[in-house]
Amino acid sequence: MLGIGIVGLGYWGPNLVRNFSAAAEAEVRCVADRDAARLQKIHSLYPAVDLLSEATEVFQRSDIDAVVLATPINTHFPLAKMALEAGKHVLVEKPLATSRAEVLELMEIADRKGLQLMVDHTFLYTGAVQKIKSLVDSGELGELQYFDSTRINLGLFNPNWSVIWDLAVHDLSIFDYISSGKKPVAVSATGISHTQMGIEDIAYISLFFNDSTIAHITSSWISPVKIRKTMIGGSKKMVIYDDVEPTEKIKIYDSGFSVSSPEDMHRWLVDYRFGDIAIPKIAQTEALLGVAQDFVSAIVRGTRPISDRESGLNVVTILEAAQQSVKQRGQTVSLV
Amino acid sequence: MLGIGIVGLGYWGPNLVRNFSAAAEAEVRCVADRDAARLQKIHSLYPAVDLLSEATEVFQRSDIDAVVLATPINTHFPLAKMALEAGKHVLVEKPLATSRAEVLELMEIADRKGLQLMVDHTFLYTGAVQKIKSLVDSGELGELQYFDSTRINLGLFNPNWSVIWDLAVHDLSIFDYISSGKKPVAVSATGISHTQMGIEDIAYISLFFNDSTIAHITSSWISPVKIRKTMIGGSKKMVIYDDVEPTEKIKIYDSGFSVSSPEDMHRWLVDYRFGDIAIPKIAQTEALLGVAQDFVSAIVRGTRPISDRESGLNVVTILEAAQQSVKQRGQTVSLV
Amino acid sequence: MLGIGIVGLGYWGPNLVRNFSAAAEAEVRCVADRDAARLQKIHSLYPAVDLLSEATEVFQRSDIDAVVLATPINTHFPLAKMALEAGKHVLVEKPLATSRAEVLELMEIADRKGLQLMVDHTFLYTGAVQKIKSLVDSGELGELQYFDSTRINLGLFNPNWSVIWDLAVHDLSIFDYISSGKKPVAVSATGISHTQMGIEDIAYISLFFNDSTIAHITSSWISPVKIRKTMIGGSKKMVIYDDVEPTEKIKIYDSGFSVSSPEDMHRWLVDYRFGDIAIPKIAQTEALLGVAQDFVSAIVRGTRPISDRESGLNVVTILEAAQQSVKQRGQTVSLV
Amino acid sequence: MLGIGIVGLGYWGPNLVRNFSAAAEAEVRCVADRDAARLQKIHSLYPAVDLLSEATEVFQRSDIDAVVLATPINTHFPLAKMALEAGKHVLVEKPLATSRAEVLELMEIADRKGLQLMVDHTFLYTGAVQKIKSLVDSGELGELQYFDSTRINLGLFNPNWSVIWDLAVHDLSIFDYISSGKKPVAVSATGISHTQMGIEDIAYISLFFNDSTIAHITSSWISPVKIRKTMIGGSKKMVIYDDVEPTEKIKIYDSGFSVSSPEDMHRWLVDYRFGDIAIPKIAQTEALLGVAQDFVSAIVRGTRPISDRESGLNVVTILEAAQQSVKQRGQTVSLV
Repeated sequence: MLGIGIVGLGYWGPNLVRNFSAAAEAEVRCVADRDAARLQKIHSLYPAVDLLSEATEVFQRSDIDAVVLATPINTHFPLAKMALEAGKHVLVEKPLATSRAEVLELMEIADRKGLQLMVDHTFLYTGAVQKIKSLVDSGELGELQYFDSTRINLGLFNPNWSVIWDLAVHDLSIFDYISSGKKPVAVSATGISHTQMGIEDIAYISLFFNDSTIAHITSSWISPVKIRKTMIGGSKKMVIYDDVEPTEKIKIYDSGFSVSSPEDMHRWLVDYRFGDIAIPKIAQTEALLGVAQDFVSAIVRGTRPISDRESGLNVVTILEAAQQSVKQRGQTVSLV
Repeated sequence: MLGIGIVGLGYWGPNLVRNFSAAAEAEVRCVADRDAARLQKIHSLYPAVDLLSEATEVFQRSDIDAVVLATPINTHFPLAKMALEAGKHVLVEKPLATSRAEVLELMEIADRKGLQLMVDHTFLYTGAVQKIKSLVDSGELGELQYFDSTRINLGLFNPNWSVIWDLAVHDLSIFDYISSGKKPVAVSATGISHTQMGIEDIAYISLFFNDSTIAHITSSWISPVKIRKTMIGGSKKMVIYDDVEPTEKIKIYDSGFSVSSPEDMHRWLVDYRFGDIAIPKIAQTEALLGVAQDFVSAIVRGTRPISDRESGLNVVTILEAAQQSVKQRGQTVSLV
Repeated sequence: MLGIGIVGLGYWGPNLVRNFSAAAEAEVRCVADRDAARLQKIHSLYPAVDLLSEATEVFQRSDIDAVVLATPINTHFPLAKMALEAGKHVLVEKPLATSRAEVLELMEIADRKGLQLMVDHTFLYTGAVQKIKSLVDSGELGELQYFDSTRINLGLFNPNWSVIWDLAVHDLSIFDYISSGKKPVAVSATGISHTQMGIEDIAYISLFFNDSTIAHITSSWISPVKIRKTMIGGSKKMVIYDDVEPTEKIKIYDSGFSVSSPEDMHRWLVDYRFGDIAIPKIAQTEALLGVAQDFVSAIVRGTRPISDRESGLNVVTILEAAQQSVKQRGQTVSLV
Repeated sequence: MLGIGIVGLGYWGPNLVRNFSAAAEAEVRCVADRDAARLQKIHSLYPAVDLLSEATEVFQRSDIDAVVLATPINTHFPLAKMALEAGKHVLVEKPLATSRAEVLELMEIADRKGLQLMVDHTFLYTGAVQKIKSLVDSGELGELQYFDSTRINLGLFNPNWSVIWDLAVHDLSIFDYISSGKKPVAVSATGISHTQMGIEDIAYISLFFNDSTIAHITSSWISPVKIRKTMIGGSKKMVIYDDVEPTEKIKIYDSGFSVSSPEDMHRWLVDYRFGDIAIPKIAQTEALLGVAQDFVSAIVRGTRPISDRESGLNVVTILEAAQQSVKQRGQTVSLV
């Protein structure tokens, strides 16, 4: 039985406690937070779990094999580093760290110590993203032409990290996963802050590749409506993934176009095809339980997790470049 | 009675013939197109209208006071120039020309000759855009924070001009109008072509201003669904304009946020407000008839048209810069 | 070339003129209406068509083979009778007549004279209804369990005939067609009038059969929104036909339930199945052109039209019984 | 502090335990169910609550002031009767009983004993229904013209009581509440069973009144989609309440019609008015907590609950008559 310690009981932490409690082969043995009220809330639901006030106390315990970090973004790197150095496997809430350099350093330590390092990109474990992944991998969509994802709503400003670190991280992790780690060669991003905090609350990211794929992400904390819509265009079919829909989350459009070779350069012929639409049934599983089980399995059986550290590295690499581009009004930042 | 000649009977031309035929104080006297079948179709509906094969024949007629151009984009400048030089008032299908320099030259000729020069930005004459304009002008929305517009569908590739010249032109003209000509100081745009034609079929444009306003436009010819949605965020209220909705095109959200001055810099307090939503009744008028009457009125009574040449200049200035930025993967192009 | 005369140029008549003008093997030779302005409007669009003021003038012309009636409901029977007696084939706007007795009399005359008698149930010629028909006929839906159709909006009160003669007629014709003329054994209907005219503006019809099928129709002229939604439940699949949707009109749900034989009578086990959803591509044809061509073909080649007189008879039989039931607050009216 | 005992821990019971635990001035002291697993589940969440296997044990306890029944429909009457006779206040899950006679008998006992008898019509405590009630009461909608409610989905067949006792009960309670207890004079209802259980899984109810109001309810357990939509037409405005919408549940349409007095009886003039639409903000409260607090307040302070026994009586009266009409294919059942 794997001993799990969970650090940070803010918005996401209690969900992690619940799902690791439900996961097989693991046991939540302690939680840590400086807020006594948060600790007490966990105690009333899970009386057997030890309550600690400091993360370091978790890392020192010999009955803890693995640590889960759900703390503010800037603490991800120092806490993960400490935990790894203390010999614990580590799962970090997204984003894995705040820079590519930090992720690489954590990876180096994990390798040296022979420990698992994993990031919690929860959406990868949803039935919807799993379905899209299988549509791409099976070739049903054809070659990837575009990925266009919008994730906006009103609320939950983060005072220290822009909206791309909070929202675009989800879209980037989904893109990385369904494209099997397709690497962008450059990024251009724009954004704006509407508060004295100077933190961008709206941002747009474009990713360029070595082929004619394009990826674009829209993030906003100040939209009057909640939209979570991802469009994935393939040369054969196109998919719309609407995460706000309660049941019909994915629509597969058997639509496309083709261009005929012109006889003379002024007469291209474009044909459009509009076919049937399919709404596949999506498995209704709790994604976070999948994350927990995947982490446990990686430790116990050495399996490679879906939301692995490479995924974390790829996403943080883009986030860092995108943030840099935002500050320069869209200047292209090369990723090669 | 103003004599009108209409050049170009492709997709849009017949609509112009119909609406100028319905407009007061004007009479369509001739149409020109090199395609005999198109001419014949007009003849069957409007037997009194003369059929010509060349635009120049229209410009030479003494019974023609004003010319309407609905020809391919690259012909806008040379034909408009000829018409003005021939002493005709000119209305040009959007975009007004292909570069800022061209527009300035046409304006100079129009000034010299004392003639009206106008562009057909049809959407400005819809009940929906008129409503949004009044919401902005009355101060009901508060200060403009963002403008985010998506115009995508599958079809109608233009083989010579990218999607921004075809679709983004609408969004830019709407932004220019409702913001009363607010000038961006820089533009960053990205895009990609999925055909051998090398013409971008997907593009994204970000506009920067001297304040914290941001404008962003998404254009695509290869979306499986038709979306025409514009979000306008103000400091007091936000508007969503969904042009695909048959009747409920505009929703006004009495929602917003405010940031409290923090006691210490690490504790910003953001308050969110979610209030009622209003769906105002929108006038159901034919926008193109409004264009026709506005053009006639400008000539006959010297009124300033809504879709005036300044609007055309502002939009073409941005299109030109955006296209340049697209070719450089988002490099910022300054507009000042 | 079949000579066609069209009587009645109100709301629907001009559409009939347009489509019979486009139909092969037929020619609109005259139209009749007592309103000179309506006649003039047709003249401007179809200068070759003769203008008459009385229906009887049409029936007397020897160059007219077939007559199309688009006149008020209560004139359908007398005018159709006159036209048949005059030796003309007849197509009547829905409903075919105002009672089963009237329809039977018209059928008897048509038989005696060897003439075609057809009703214009336009919806049967839409791609959507054709698709549903094929789903039922192929067995894909399984046994028909229910048909539930709602057709409501605000407007177009008929001052003399209740909403069921105006709107429910569409739903009944669709049911009759997709069920291949399945005959109800009884009807119960309710409704109410909200005006001094005493004509029901809201009505509900339930149809009973010899098996466990049920059909229900909701009709209203006083709904704030336009709804045209038909649900067809089968033992294998269920279909929702939403005619207000511009493109995605039909959704096929691979959902259902089954009941296990209980061991004791108090423990039934019901299993639910939720599967994929399919949105088939629907042919975008003008339904009324299909009506016109079907009528012409019936006359010229003796084919049996989709919207044949049996369809008209079945629908009028139910309408008459439903109206009787409405006046008696739902009292069951037997149809056998 | 009021001592509460809750009987029945199936689908709804645990929700009642949770909300009565949260209610002020009350304390859940015991729960009863014959299923040990259900009892154990409550124990793990509420260790202080006593676990009993029989309802009668609850009624015998002197520390229990009030009993809440969430048991199968046919047990409502005998258990409520026993509880009242034992001197306990009683709240019964909807429907209050299975016949008007049963409700009247319970009311008589409650009166005799000076005890509260209340039914749990949960929807009356939602922000949406409260809003509609205030729109009706303030006169904003004008005179009530129609009430048309649809509540359908796939699932949860009750093997002993038809769909009207399960679903229509909600719509009837909402109608009764917003109309301030307007009494129908007759009911006509239809329905059908698609299983060997012989229990109607689809049903339609029409209610008639002494004026031109009509109410109609559609209930189904075999729809492929979940719909919960209520339309309320007034002489001034109309409301659509869509309970499936997560936030925009209520739309108020400033639309209507008026009929002009005709000069001659053949020329009625109907005017239609389409105005703005408003989507008011709805309070997001847990309705069932409102039920619990209302019950406690009725006992402690003698206030009249919203979902009072008259509401229960009115609804059961209609359900009983509707079920009778269903069995007779819509025969009118008089309620006066």
